[in-house]
Amino acid sequence: MKKTLKERLYEIIFEADTPSGKRFDIALLIFILISIALVMIDSIPSVNRQYGTELRIAEWCITLIFSLEYLLRLWVVQKPVNYAFSFFGIIDLLAVIPSYLTLLIAGTHSLIVLRALRLLRVFRILKLTRYTSASKFIMQALIASRNKISVFLFSVLILVTILGTIMYMLEGEANSGFTSIPRSIYWAIVTLTTVGYGDISPVTPAGQFLAGCVMILGYSIIAVPTGIITVEFNRLEKAAQKNTQVCQCLDFLS
Amino acid sequence: MKKTLKERLYEIIFEADTPSGKRFDIALLIFILISIALVMIDSIPSVNRQYGTELRIAEWCITLIFSLEYLLRLWVVQKPVNYAFSFFGIIDLLAVIPSYLTLLIAGTHSLIVLRALRLLRVFRILKLTRYTSASKFIMQALIASRNKISVFLFSVLILVTILGTIMYMLEGEANSGFTSIPRSIYWAIVTLTTVGYGDISPVTPAGQFLAGCVMILGYSIIAVPTGIITVEFNRLEKAAQKNTQVCQCLDFLS
Amino acid sequence: MKKTLKERLYEIIFEADTPSGKRFDIALLIFILISIALVMIDSIPSVNRQYGTELRIAEWCITLIFSLEYLLRLWVVQKPVNYAFSFFGIIDLLAVIPSYLTLLIAGTHSLIVLRALRLLRVFRILKLTRYTSASKFIMQALIASRNKISVFLFSVLILVTILGTIMYMLEGEANSGFTSIPRSIYWAIVTLTTVGYGDISPVTPAGQFLAGCVMILGYSIIAVPTGIITVEFNRLEKAAQKNTQVCQCLDFLS
Amino acid sequence: MKKTLKERLYEIIFEADTPSGKRFDIALLIFILISIALVMIDSIPSVNRQYGTELRIAEWCITLIFSLEYLLRLWVVQKPVNYAFSFFGIIDLLAVIPSYLTLLIAGTHSLIVLRALRLLRVFRILKLTRYTSASKFIMQALIASRNKISVFLFSVLILVTILGTIMYMLEGEANSGFTSIPRSIYWAIVTLTTVGYGDISPVTPAGQFLAGCVMILGYSIIAVPTGIITVEFNRLEKAAQKNTQVCQCLDFLS
Repeated sequence: MKKTLKERLYEIIFEADTPSGKRFDIALLIFILISIALVMIDSIPSVNRQYGTELRIAEWCITLIFSLEYLLRLWVVQKPVNYAFSFFGIIDLLAVIPSYLTLLIAGTHSLIVLRALRLLRVFRILKLTRYTSASKFIMQALIASRNKISVFLFSVLILVTILGTIMYMLEGEANSGFTSIPRSIYWAIVTLTTVGYGDISPVTPAGQFLAGCVMILGYSIIAVPTGIITVEFNRLEKAAQKNTQVCQCLDFLS
Repeated sequence: MKKTLKERLYEIIFEADTPSGKRFDIALLIFILISIALVMIDSIPSVNRQYGTELRIAEWCITLIFSLEYLLRLWVVQKPVNYAFSFFGIIDLLAVIPSYLTLLIAGTHSLIVLRALRLLRVFRILKLTRYTSASKFIMQALIASRNKISVFLFSVLILVTILGTIMYMLEGEANSGFTSIPRSIYWAIVTLTTVGYGDISPVTPAGQFLAGCVMILGYSIIAVPTGIITVEFNRLEKAAQKNTQVCQCLDFLS
Repeated sequence: MKKTLKERLYEIIFEADTPSGKRFDIALLIFILISIALVMIDSIPSVNRQYGTELRIAEWCITLIFSLEYLLRLWVVQKPVNYAFSFFGIIDLLAVIPSYLTLLIAGTHSLIVLRALRLLRVFRILKLTRYTSASKFIMQALIASRNKISVFLFSVLILVTILGTIMYMLEGEANSGFTSIPRSIYWAIVTLTTVGYGDISPVTPAGQFLAGCVMILGYSIIAVPTGIITVEFNRLEKAAQKNTQVCQCLDFLS
Repeated sequence: MKKTLKERLYEIIFEADTPSGKRFDIALLIFILISIALVMIDSIPSVNRQYGTELRIAEWCITLIFSLEYLLRLWVVQKPVNYAFSFFGIIDLLAVIPSYLTLLIAGTHSLIVLRALRLLRVFRILKLTRYTSASKFIMQALIASRNKISVFLFSVLILVTILGTIMYMLEGEANSGFTSIPRSIYWAIVTLTTVGYGDISPVTPAGQFLAGCVMILGYSIIAVPTGIITVEFNRLEKAAQKNTQVCQCLDFLS
């Protein structure tokens, strides 16, 4: 009943509940975080100029490790085609291709963009957290309230469309940045969500009056999603406590 | 018992629960969204210059479809006058008039504004969503808590009036944008709702100190509408569960 | 048992539950709102220049009405001294004095500031709303949770002091507006409360990193006051329902 | 059974429940607040120039008082080494050292920074508030929900990383401040948390569209931490009421 190397590797790479599987997942996670840090640091112009060579070497190390991992996954899995076309299979491939493309193509900027695809590997972390009970609890509440949240988001979209159009009419002539309806809608979103960049802001008294109304509106309707989620969390919390409570109640009555 | 063409059309246009009625509503919705998209795109100066002719043709297609729909509605309804002066009747008329006005009047800018009236047709979408249980739930909670929300909004209005006036006194001389009390009230709204454009911001130490107090105040009182809505959602949620719970309780006691 | 003029006037001016008393309160409210609107409009420089004379006439009308009201109040009340030194008595006096001072003193700007004192009469509105059940409900919840809100506000104050000082150390040399610790604390309040004017914003990488942490912190801790108020609202709501529920429960068990 | 001076001093300095202990704590608190105010005021360049000498004298008074307090604490405590290396022992030492260093070192700026260490003494206030029931309640809720809050913060971090990278790709070429991925992530945090400085804001239509989505997302997900904390507060509130309720229920059933 001795396992072959392929079976043992499958356990390590694809399963998370054996000690060696866990260690593999954590090691992979660290390499993903390093690769993301490299992409980030590399995008800073001054760092890129000064430490170009070192970053290039580090990038190739990461690329070789990820390539090895990708080939191992293809080898140990029973149906390589299924893995290759699965969500994670495609992401794993996209994470290594850009580096090899630099050998073929001379142009550099589009490759910086491509290299950022490596960032998608961060989803592997999500795969790990998916199993914790806390994230399960939050996801459950969000899924249960998706109808109400959709209605809310939909109302917000209609609201910003109408408010943006009215604002375009009020401020369109005043050279204050409301140059088109889409831009005015962008302003309405910035204001209603209380972000408030200030890159576009009303200058006419009528525009400022409407803006004030939009702000107080935005300030008040934030209560709606909060209320929805809170009630859902509350319901889930109680459902979890119910079994215990029923038992206590039985003890209490008898 | 065969229905006349007029009766069949009435069913399709005004009722939403037959298959053909549903299909009509969805088709209408798509045309409304297209017409809104056209108004938006048309307001972007660069697009307007380049694709002016194409946009004009598309606009006339939409206008003709909406005109046909309006005339059909007038024809099939039992009391055309009632429809013509109803909320949706007026909006439907306002959506087609501006395009015909361009044939009569030469001036163009005021018509861009008029054309935006078409946006009001978006309310037809609201008519559809009105029947979903999720939006009903949210509306019910908002209506039930309208007294408390009004008191809150009213307090916010008094607060921003007082804070705006104090700020005008503190910063009025400092050339920092607090040029009149209404503008200072505008600033107070921008700050209290945590929007914070930064187009007007205090420069004197006293003004910055008061601004800091306003911010912490605004940050804290956002809790009030959220609390009101959450409690209302909670009450509605429980009311919905009650029937089930009473039955369970009866089973449990017997 | 015929009432004297003084007694009838007392009922009209000081009591709110007779029809004539209500009418007096509403009329007074309208005059207060007009006087506030006048102060606001008068503070706009362009309006002040153009409609100076008309505003001056309107202001004197309001002043005479308020003076008459003040004198009537002094006459009809049993202990004029008590009224004169009460909260509303002082406010009523402060609302009329500035206009008379313009006859004595030549300087104008300081009087604009003094005239703004009239705004304080807005508190008379609060006196009316004080009796509605909705505002009572909100006030009750805020008073019941004042301890927890104080602890929260106190923690926020300590937090912004520490964050502001750290930021001053990180950004002090970078000429980005963090010129002193009080100014950095002002920035920390602007950021933590998610207002974000942008008049002071970090430019060094370390400063931007800390700012990011402050933002996420501020984004999360807003949950604390909201949670406190919501729970308090919930408790009050339940307390109000209790009597009804106990009865229902008795019916149910018997 | 007469206590020695050392024992009496220990009671006064380290214990908070005797009258003299309380008076000592309040006096210490006032001196800490004064010392913090001095550090703050001293950091304002104009004040520093004008009142330099007075501030220097005040600072030495505070330093001597804190030095005396530190030496007394070392003397009265049973194990001076334990106190010296405890959290508060180190802070108490760090509060006095910078002033003495100015006698040895000539350079001034680095000492301004060092002097700010005195601010850490503000934690002594936390020590006092730790015992109030309101802060206990809040801390308990935060600790109980730390798992869910962590999952939320972790999701926010992944989200801003992905959104920042996408934004860097969309806006990188447009000279609008998205010069590197870390800077774009900084922008994503500023936007998602609805702070919105406006120092970096998108200028391309694609960038503004994504920014709009980020804002609405940020506006909605603020509901998650609020919901978590509210439910936890609710649970604690109920746990506190339970004992009372069980008794009432027993009375009611019998």
